[in-house]
Amino acid sequence: MNIQRRKTRTCTVGNVKIGSDHPVAIQTMTMAKSEDAKAVIAEIKTIEDSACDIIRISIPTLDAAKNIPEIKASTEMPIVADIHFDPRLAIAALDYGADKIRINPGNFYDRSYLEKVIKLAKEKGAAIRIGVNAGSLEKDLWEKHGAPTADALAESALRWVDFVEALDFKNFVVSIKSERVQVMIAAYKKFVEADNDVPLHLGVTHAGSLIPGTVKNSMGIGALLMQGIGDTVRASITDSIEKEVEVCKNILKAIGLYDKEADVIACPTCGRLEVDLEKMLAEVEAALKPIKRPIRVAVMGCVVNAVGEAKESDYGIASGKKAGALFYKGELFKANVPEANLVNELLELIQEKEQIKL
Amino acid sequence: MNIQRRKTRTCTVGNVKIGSDHPVAIQTMTMAKSEDAKAVIAEIKTIEDSACDIIRISIPTLDAAKNIPEIKASTEMPIVADIHFDPRLAIAALDYGADKIRINPGNFYDRSYLEKVIKLAKEKGAAIRIGVNAGSLEKDLWEKHGAPTADALAESALRWVDFVEALDFKNFVVSIKSERVQVMIAAYKKFVEADNDVPLHLGVTHAGSLIPGTVKNSMGIGALLMQGIGDTVRASITDSIEKEVEVCKNILKAIGLYDKEADVIACPTCGRLEVDLEKMLAEVEAALKPIKRPIRVAVMGCVVNAVGEAKESDYGIASGKKAGALFYKGELFKANVPEANLVNELLELIQEKEQIKL
Repeated sequence: MNIQRRKTRTCTVGNVKIGSDHPVAIQTMTMAKSEDAKAVIAEIKTIEDSACDIIRISIPTLDAAKNIPEIKASTEMPIVADIHFDPRLAIAALDYGADKIRINPGNFYDRSYLEKVIKLAKEKGAAIRIGVNAGSLEKDLWEKHGAPTADALAESALRWVDFVEALDFKNFVVSIKSERVQVMIAAYKKFVEADNDVPLHLGVTHAGSLIPGTVKNSMGIGALLMQGIGDTVRASITDSIEKEVEVCKNILKAIGLYDKEADVIACPTCGRLEVDLEKMLAEVEAALKPIKRPIRVAVMGCVVNAVGEAKESDYGIASGKKAGALFYKGELFKANVPEANLVNELLELIQEKEQIKL
Repeated sequence: MNIQRRKTRTCTVGNVKIGSDHPVAIQTMTMAKSEDAKAVIAEIKTIEDSACDIIRISIPTLDAAKNIPEIKASTEMPIVADIHFDPRLAIAALDYGADKIRINPGNFYDRSYLEKVIKLAKEKGAAIRIGVNAGSLEKDLWEKHGAPTADALAESALRWVDFVEALDFKNFVVSIKSERVQVMIAAYKKFVEADNDVPLHLGVTHAGSLIPGTVKNSMGIGALLMQGIGDTVRASITDSIEKEVEVCKNILKAIGLYDKEADVIACPTCGRLEVDLEKMLAEVEAALKPIKRPIRVAVMGCVVNAVGEAKESDYGIASGKKAGALFYKGELFKANVPEANLVNELLELIQEKEQIKL
């Protein structure tokens, strides 16, 4: 089921392009203090070979801004400077070469700087994210709407879009985050109704630890992407940045928006199981890591759904009592494979057919 | 944002009622072999105090069916017998007292037994789930639709609903699972368009290990629940049943459908952090476990969004450099609380206001 993406213009962030003509970009945000360049660089190394496209770092001080060149030099991924309160830090981050700055004009203590920031971004060829957030909605909108409702958040975002576009600056994206999944979804939909072509950055904020965070981001980001809304995503999770990237990648994969990886499906284990499916699944997933193409592989514990799944998969195994079957392109490829050889024979078949060495 | 649930009749499963007049019920399925009653009982013990409402066990053999009385005696949760292929096992499971049987008529090797199964369930006061699955779609529908499409799956489900209702049996639910999130969503929506009042069991099948499984189930189950569709849920994840239950609970919590627990929200950690937020979050979450009511608690690492979040929460802390602030019902309750006392003072405030001992 192909997703018809909402048509947007393109926002260029270093070597990454964000918008409906490009794959949905995955972002994360480092946790290390940006005043410690070495720590930030070490953290970025942990996701060097991941699905991550763009890195954000917080810039709460001038010392942090000064580290941008060193951090940029350490990675090919574009660097986004996260700015709050002090617009002078936005100026410093741009001066030090940030590929993009994330600002929330609603929390700038002096908005008279905003014009200067936009003009500098334009001059430097940098991008901007206007990041509206339920927690820092402007006072007048809070008073008008009584709470950070979807309408209030969309109104805030549209206000800043008008401001920035009036300065003839177009290289920006917008985010409208809430930690309430339904508010977040409704706010983006409201923004989209205004019929502009601004690329959108999606996320649920303050989503919590691994399971609640994964759940909320999947529900919120997922619901919008399935409706064609969203051009770059970040899952805010109180865990490692590796996990954040993994969650984003899996959201995209689940709906066919990620094509740089094999899709391994497995049945949930149950009492019918005659084999160690978890072990087999882990082996297959690990072995297929180098495959950067969207082949579909089914690892099934018994025959209940295996034949049907195999028909829908490129490759598949169905385990039985001590022996199993190998499927290729929906057809039985080999029966009665001893359990101990099942994973190996599957991997051999994939290597042969895909002409790749695993 | 309140969800308007699709109106359904009620399906009674032991002491649990499934349908739009009742909270969405959470289910999981044991992994231990059901021929080993002690192992199944030990596994059920791991979720005795969780959010789980209903337990499913696989019944692949007569020996497994014989263990149903012993397993039922060990827990207050209703027991569902999962049956495939052999309708005689459905009859045995009902005879041994299963509160509900899950059948997939599409994979019964002899459908002439189906009428007998339905009549026995009626006689025993048991419930049935008709579990249609992309992997085991009937041949004629596969041929008609060319694949297990949403239309094919909904047609299969509606066919079995007609069959069962023609026997004047109403105490059943329907599930229509696919491991493809968008197919699953579309299939349930198609089923609902047929305008019946059958309660629905939601799930994404073969969803994979913890992160992919959580992502897919959250996207699929979440999208439907937000549209008011779904009366009981199970997240199929290749991990422990505790994790499955936790995922289900978090899906419901994220959209206000779970009210037996405090909602602790936290900001994602970032470089602005002056305190050990993960530790504080874990402490707060652990301490609030006994609270079985939907209070909202914000654990914020800095002031960027804290004031706004606090306004939307019942209780909150915002950490700063070595000291933080305590919020109650959207107002600043106490400033300059030393970092070391912040969690304790928050918990004391909650105990006092909620009149509960933690």
